[in-house]
Amino acid sequence: VSSEFARIEQLCRIFDAHLAAVPVGIGDDAAVLDMLSLGQNASRVVWTIDSSVEGVHFRRDIASYFDVGWRSFMAAASDLAAMGARPIGAIAAVMLTSDMTDEDLYEIARGQRAAADSIGTAIIGGNLSKAGEYSVSTTVLGHASRTVCRNGARVGDVFAVCGELGFAGAGLRCLLDGLSAGELAKRAIKCWQRPVALIDSGLVASAHATSMIDVSDGLALDASHIAEASGLRIELNDAALANAELEVLAKQIGTSALALMLSGGEDYALLATFEPSQVPLGFRVIGKCVQGAGVYIRERRVDALGHDHFASA
Amino acid sequence: VSSEFARIEQLCRIFDAHLAAVPVGIGDDAAVLDMLSLGQNASRVVWTIDSSVEGVHFRRDIASYFDVGWRSFMAAASDLAAMGARPIGAIAAVMLTSDMTDEDLYEIARGQRAAADSIGTAIIGGNLSKAGEYSVSTTVLGHASRTVCRNGARVGDVFAVCGELGFAGAGLRCLLDGLSAGELAKRAIKCWQRPVALIDSGLVASAHATSMIDVSDGLALDASHIAEASGLRIELNDAALANAELEVLAKQIGTSALALMLSGGEDYALLATFEPSQVPLGFRVIGKCVQGAGVYIRERRVDALGHDHFASA
Repeated sequence: VSSEFARIEQLCRIFDAHLAAVPVGIGDDAAVLDMLSLGQNASRVVWTIDSSVEGVHFRRDIASYFDVGWRSFMAAASDLAAMGARPIGAIAAVMLTSDMTDEDLYEIARGQRAAADSIGTAIIGGNLSKAGEYSVSTTVLGHASRTVCRNGARVGDVFAVCGELGFAGAGLRCLLDGLSAGELAKRAIKCWQRPVALIDSGLVASAHATSMIDVSDGLALDASHIAEASGLRIELNDAALANAELEVLAKQIGTSALALMLSGGEDYALLATFEPSQVPLGFRVIGKCVQGAGVYIRERRVDALGHDHFASA
Repeated sequence: VSSEFARIEQLCRIFDAHLAAVPVGIGDDAAVLDMLSLGQNASRVVWTIDSSVEGVHFRRDIASYFDVGWRSFMAAASDLAAMGARPIGAIAAVMLTSDMTDEDLYEIARGQRAAADSIGTAIIGGNLSKAGEYSVSTTVLGHASRTVCRNGARVGDVFAVCGELGFAGAGLRCLLDGLSAGELAKRAIKCWQRPVALIDSGLVASAHATSMIDVSDGLALDASHIAEASGLRIELNDAALANAELEVLAKQIGTSALALMLSGGEDYALLATFEPSQVPLGFRVIGKCVQGAGVYIRERRVDALGHDHFASA
């Protein structure tokens, strides 16, 4: 294992962050952001943190270090998408076990870098710590002109989704069961390994969405957060959710497409509510907001179907 | 263990953050900061993350949950002090092992809240995760009109400290050795349990400091970061470092005051360099910047004396 200094030098090379808004990046006590260079768009700053922990959110036998870097970054960035914000930069706290090499750390960093690049932002700082357990906590800062919370849905709004549901959960099952043959399985595995935070769609939605959330724990639980915060019931339309490809894949792994959608999790799709006339391009209506509480499909309450990462897999 | 919803409700009550700059706090996908309400002072935003890990940075037999909440917050906030920044707010990622109760989590939160209160800021968001290892990662955002980095020291500058050195390391040793009798031991233990980030001193120093860093790993290693980044040698003056009380305590625990200062760590004092005529009130000169490399005391190079938390304790 190299010295901390040598490691940080190498991480600077990997991240290679040259953002006009970041005069001081990796290597000092803290990163510095020049808010004036962000202009008027920086009136609202949006800030989140998310942790990925070995054995809880991933396992080393199914996720490479690069995968973990990519996924941990996107899980955090997706929270900004769900607020209607665009990332300014990210900082990560990485905990490394004693069996992990320099190269393992750099592979995590390469995954973070690739993920950040893909949505036009950068890793600008962080912290390395020894630990008995391998984890990555990522904090992302973004800016927004209008932010969208979970509590603004109104009775009469439609409930819509942007992005695919259930495929990431199916991909995880394929990885755990060793089912990587077939085009559908490969596509699902890719959904789990390389999720993409829907930043642009979140921004588009933010103009009219009355509420928004990203799907990290499955449609049932994440929709229930909007229902609970907004004080209403969400009724899902099972015909609108039907997906023939996911159904084929679901059968192969011994479950149903609906079960994968409701509690699969880690899709990082966006769920949002709109007045019926204001659903933006890219979102499809899968339900409606009515008086009451909870999330229902075919008159069955489903929001108790939680997601617990590996526990439910 | 309560539901996540119930836990977050209770955490909202504990943190009770009502900041004008934070229209959306705990409970949504992300926190929202209204930068306009911070006025011109928000032209530069300073951002850091720090992790406290059980077995690496603390042990449950010597640190209560409250202690861990307090210390993990201050370790992160101290990085802002070292940049000359004032905190706007903090977000924490807490990893909880299965044996930890709701009350354990709330005690961590009360420690974070008390620490944040003591320097005039608040916890405005976070993430809870199951884990096999207990840790707290804290990210703090601050603002500054002038930031101070590690690389600006010049030959001819004096090297100065604000705050005490060595007492936190002595306190940790007292706790580990079961030596809690005596006023000096009690004071040292308090230094380890309740460090305070020197936010105001950092702001005062930022007007003239050419470089600055906080003491997390001990005087030797932290001074070496300034020496390395600035491309010069720091010569420490052992007479200026002398501390009779710390010497008494050091003897009780079988070491020297100088050893505690150089590699004790976790003091969260500030080290800064200034032109000789511009040392602000509160800082005392303990060395000077000369041509060369490394950190020296009595012609002995000391910057290889690292700090490794428990490994060195």
